[in-house]
Amino acid sequence: MERIGWIGTGVMGASMCGHLVAAGHRATVFTRTPSKADELVARGATRVDSPRAVAESSDVVFVMVGFPADVREVVMGERGALAGASPGTLLVDMTTSDPALAREIEREANARGVGSLDAPVSGGDVGAREARLSIMVGGRAGDFARARPLFERMGRTIVHQGPAGAGQQAKLVNQVLVASGMIGICEALLFATRAGLDPETVLASVSGGAAGSWALSNLGPRILRRDFAPGFFVEHFVKDLGLAVGEARRMGLDLPGLALAERLYGELAALGHGRSGTQALVLALAKLSGIDPP
Amino acid sequence: MERIGWIGTGVMGASMCGHLVAAGHRATVFTRTPSKADELVARGATRVDSPRAVAESSDVVFVMVGFPADVREVVMGERGALAGASPGTLLVDMTTSDPALAREIEREANARGVGSLDAPVSGGDVGAREARLSIMVGGRAGDFARARPLFERMGRTIVHQGPAGAGQQAKLVNQVLVASGMIGICEALLFATRAGLDPETVLASVSGGAAGSWALSNLGPRILRRDFAPGFFVEHFVKDLGLAVGEARRMGLDLPGLALAERLYGELAALGHGRSGTQALVLALAKLSGIDPP
Repeated sequence: MERIGWIGTGVMGASMCGHLVAAGHRATVFTRTPSKADELVARGATRVDSPRAVAESSDVVFVMVGFPADVREVVMGERGALAGASPGTLLVDMTTSDPALAREIEREANARGVGSLDAPVSGGDVGAREARLSIMVGGRAGDFARARPLFERMGRTIVHQGPAGAGQQAKLVNQVLVASGMIGICEALLFATRAGLDPETVLASVSGGAAGSWALSNLGPRILRRDFAPGFFVEHFVKDLGLAVGEARRMGLDLPGLALAERLYGELAALGHGRSGTQALVLALAKLSGIDPP
Repeated sequence: MERIGWIGTGVMGASMCGHLVAAGHRATVFTRTPSKADELVARGATRVDSPRAVAESSDVVFVMVGFPADVREVVMGERGALAGASPGTLLVDMTTSDPALAREIEREANARGVGSLDAPVSGGDVGAREARLSIMVGGRAGDFARARPLFERMGRTIVHQGPAGAGQQAKLVNQVLVASGMIGICEALLFATRAGLDPETVLASVSGGAAGSWALSNLGPRILRRDFAPGFFVEHFVKDLGLAVGEARRMGLDLPGLALAERLYGELAALGHGRSGTQALVLALAKLSGIDPP
């Protein structure tokens, strides 16, 4: 049974690594805030003091950190995972990150006989906890086949999207969908409230039809309760939108809905809502009109 | 059993009126293109030559036409339904139309002892055919209670949204949701294709999660087949978006996603796609970037 390593045991990472520990894998973990690994250590994982040390004791090393700069550091830094990896090690970055960085990591890894996959996820904290994530994978088919049984402990929809970077690109497609969808939901609830309608009653009419979506059913009611607790942090979404905008530009695509979402989420973060959930977008939209949120 | 009248037997109206005929109601119909009522006449409906004549023979008169100007003419014109209605008649406008017009019709109707409801629908041609529409109703509670058994022949989600105009406003909320949602779907599919991903494979990863929606599952595959046949006409959606923009302005709301959708759908209509389905938006977005659609 493969020895696994885990770098970054935040809300998502701790749940995901926990499923592998529960399946009987020996686990070595590193995380920037050591206390965040306490529960995994109590369940038998070994805590070490660098990503390099994780790789030295592992066959498959997972990364789940915040931003592309973090990925670069924990993978390619002086004390990074690549420095501790041996030929035959497999690196799997599950952070939502830059497709170009995924390709760069694969080149660096392959040059040392190390495998590499980019494998970002959707499904949020609940999906991670319940092992119901959607995992979008880029990289070589052989590496994908090797990692697949491990992915199956964490998720339910596991799809090989193509070569290195393709997992990241598929995740950015997901975020492009989420971005405009959230604009529609927030604008619709502002419209309903401002019109004097009862928004719950409107949701009863519209949720089941052509306007229906996961986000409307799950985040619409939170917006109406003014519950802006994070399922997914605004600051992470701002990062993802920036990555998507950069990729779109590189590909010669003019995507006005995505550009609008990037601007509005930037304004929301500037209002101090970086650590709110993405549904807080309604606050930025209400501010545009100078009114209270629904 | 109430004698019903139907004004406007296009694709939607013919199916909806047909359910009432099938339930045993005596029906009197008027439609601008007489042949569109042939099937209803073959099933026992009586064709007359004006909306006024419809109202003269009916207890409850339904209207399902194209644009607010058509509603105004068939209801309040010289040969309109109000001219033929008697005290106790109930008028039900199921066209997606202007909330202010709905209030005006109610005032005119009530002044003659005639009831009035605005009751636009979502669910499209398929929903109409299968009696699975969502019907959003504005008007007095008593009128709603009277019409409810008739609505139940046509739809499955029947909700009283409030006073006159509230049905129209709820339908515009639906369209605000649909508008930004469609932008997201078209941009996401352009992104996926341009990135060299297989869009069907990407849909397998994203459709079941937080980015999932009715429109993605139902219209995404049509976009990928370049099937732009109308479920819902672009020209009608342009009308609806104009109504929503007008209402938003009246309410002091700045809704940039809605404004973007109005602009893009206007460009799509200008490209000659007024009679295509709303999923043809991908063509306007591809044109922005000067590329082929996915």
